[in-house]
Amino acid sequence: MALIVQKYGGTSVANPERIKNVAKRVAKFQAQGNQVVVVLSAMSGETNKLIALAKEIQANPDPRELDMIMSTGEQVTIGLLAMALQELGVKARSYTGGQVKVLTDSTFTKARILSIDEGNMRRDLEAGNVVVVAGFQGVDADGNITTLGRGGSDTSGVALAAALKADECQIYTDVDGVYTTDPRVVPEAKKLDTITFEEMLEMASLGSKVLQIRSVEFAGKYKVKLRVLSSFQDEGEGTLITVEEDKNMEQPIISGIAFNRDEAKLTMLGVPDKPGIAYQILGAIAAANIDVDMIIQNVGHDGTTDFSFTVNRGEFAKAQAILDTVKGELGARQVVGDNKICKVSAVGVGMRSHPGVASQMFKALADEGINIQMISTSEIKISVVLDEKYLELAVRVLHRTFGLDQ
Amino acid sequence: MALIVQKYGGTSVANPERIKNVAKRVAKFQAQGNQVVVVLSAMSGETNKLIALAKEIQANPDPRELDMIMSTGEQVTIGLLAMALQELGVKARSYTGGQVKVLTDSTFTKARILSIDEGNMRRDLEAGNVVVVAGFQGVDADGNITTLGRGGSDTSGVALAAALKADECQIYTDVDGVYTTDPRVVPEAKKLDTITFEEMLEMASLGSKVLQIRSVEFAGKYKVKLRVLSSFQDEGEGTLITVEEDKNMEQPIISGIAFNRDEAKLTMLGVPDKPGIAYQILGAIAAANIDVDMIIQNVGHDGTTDFSFTVNRGEFAKAQAILDTVKGELGARQVVGDNKICKVSAVGVGMRSHPGVASQMFKALADEGINIQMISTSEIKISVVLDEKYLELAVRVLHRTFGLDQ
Repeated sequence: MALIVQKYGGTSVANPERIKNVAKRVAKFQAQGNQVVVVLSAMSGETNKLIALAKEIQANPDPRELDMIMSTGEQVTIGLLAMALQELGVKARSYTGGQVKVLTDSTFTKARILSIDEGNMRRDLEAGNVVVVAGFQGVDADGNITTLGRGGSDTSGVALAAALKADECQIYTDVDGVYTTDPRVVPEAKKLDTITFEEMLEMASLGSKVLQIRSVEFAGKYKVKLRVLSSFQDEGEGTLITVEEDKNMEQPIISGIAFNRDEAKLTMLGVPDKPGIAYQILGAIAAANIDVDMIIQNVGHDGTTDFSFTVNRGEFAKAQAILDTVKGELGARQVVGDNKICKVSAVGVGMRSHPGVASQMFKALADEGINIQMISTSEIKISVVLDEKYLELAVRVLHRTFGLDQ
Repeated sequence: MALIVQKYGGTSVANPERIKNVAKRVAKFQAQGNQVVVVLSAMSGETNKLIALAKEIQANPDPRELDMIMSTGEQVTIGLLAMALQELGVKARSYTGGQVKVLTDSTFTKARILSIDEGNMRRDLEAGNVVVVAGFQGVDADGNITTLGRGGSDTSGVALAAALKADECQIYTDVDGVYTTDPRVVPEAKKLDTITFEEMLEMASLGSKVLQIRSVEFAGKYKVKLRVLSSFQDEGEGTLITVEEDKNMEQPIISGIAFNRDEAKLTMLGVPDKPGIAYQILGAIAAANIDVDMIIQNVGHDGTTDFSFTVNRGEFAKAQAILDTVKGELGARQVVGDNKICKVSAVGVGMRSHPGVASQMFKALADEGINIQMISTSEIKISVVLDEKYLELAVRVLHRTFGLDQ
């Protein structure tokens, strides 16, 4: 008998009909002899509706009170799913994060999970119940309701699976797995049967919005077997996210091509090349709560250097204004920026043992006349920044170059 | 410094604008040097919306899961009011019933309050906070969320006032107090400055839907000073519900005329006059979950008697069908019924010391040619059942007869 944690997102529980479908799927798994713990999001749109309501009262809602309100969305769906299961003759009990209890720190709206009490869940599972838990939420040491931030239900699912030492954590979403790239850009894109945590992390951070990145880190850390599946298809094994790369297969070097069209780049030219400039530039950016993605500084010459980074396109203007201020303080020559860029990345653990991947990638882009503006690499990823007009072409070329079309 | 518990109903918190108005009122009370605990209902319509959602899943929703869902309505309003108070510069913290904690039994959807932990509230009040508590809900000994049944927020308010030994419990509603009768029927109806708990109980049970009857019982039992006020008017002292009748004033004998147009009467004629018939008739009715209001059995003659009672009009047909079955078992002669009736009652503690009230009432009705179908009396109430066409006339006549117009 296996213990499975299944997490269903907002689109999977968007209305009573879909909740009944989730119940059928859960009932089927239980009938196959599994113990099942279900973790749910709020109905899609519900959390945003609650936030909008709060903002009608307070432009910048108090975080504790916002969590009080936001946590109601999941509380509704868990009750409804427990009812739907009972209607199918399956015993079921729902729990809020506080009831489980999912103990978190007190960082309202983006709390971190500290521990999970498995007592109630174990008892109910032993008694033949499906246990239905509200995702996205917990409770702090003082009994205040907390939420885990956007996508927190994935994290709840993985954390519960880790606490229960579940055999598998299944994340049901509206796609049927992780693909070699976005099928809307490359129709030949293939679903991956497996992907490593490291690859998934790189894919997720680069814009493949299948899984919330924190939940992937969490699953990797606690060795939770994680599987992404579609809640709208009855067949299919989805994509299994594994700790180890599959040594037995002739693994392709590159697992997927990720991309992000939501970036903008900024460069400060002619920065005096001395210690502390990176901090002076990015400290000001961080102080304005702007997230920075790629950071590139090349070797200097003539006592100056150029410093580049990318930010979310929506924060381009704000970041540029900050750099214009910092420029004077640093005695830099000029600030230049471009918000018509994209980032394309080849991701794969295979590149660790295949040194020629980067040059293969650059050649493929050059052959198509695509100019590379910035390059950044990690152990299992090569990212390039390009003019955004080349995005689709670059993704298609790289998908073919690394044999992902077959 | 006084400690005041204020309870606001669903219409008072129906939208962000009204919630802001409640915040202003609460802030004013606090600025006057009071400690304030606010108890809230869900936005009007919200609880019904949640029940409808549950019924789309399960025709007869599981009570534990229904409470899980229903309790979210108040959880939203308390968060929003705390925000609105903060926006006015008033420190405020919200609490669910479970967080307070309001400990109840485990009778889901109609739980009874067992105890209230005042620790969190006292601490926050001492620190200068307004404490905002979700009405209608509590938590059982196992940590399950419970609700108190319809109108339960009134009960929550009174119970919190009792636990905190508050100086006053103010129930804000959409009327500005308790009237001598419904002003829509008698324009001369007057707002009462005070009414006793006993009178309020009789008025409430007779259809004056100002206060939930259980909360009035609770207030009487724990000697909570209860006041009904309008949340839509800035002025006015509302109606104070007192333990003692006011000995100092020339108290009118009758405090108000209550009525109910939602009843139907049933009579079983020619029932063999022997022990146990009341149980045999009403046991079958109770088994079908039909609430009975008035019950009348007169002395028998010729070995038979007639047995009458009233039920809610919506359950008339169902009750009649049951009686038709019971008739055969009892060997009764006939079942007759009428669903075009109304009940009109004169209520007042003064009638205890004024024996002529009943005859005065009957004469006034007779003078208008109104036939009385049934009579039932208590220590402080005389109720008559009439043809429903006489309702307005009877109420107006009695209102004048007992000097309530002045």
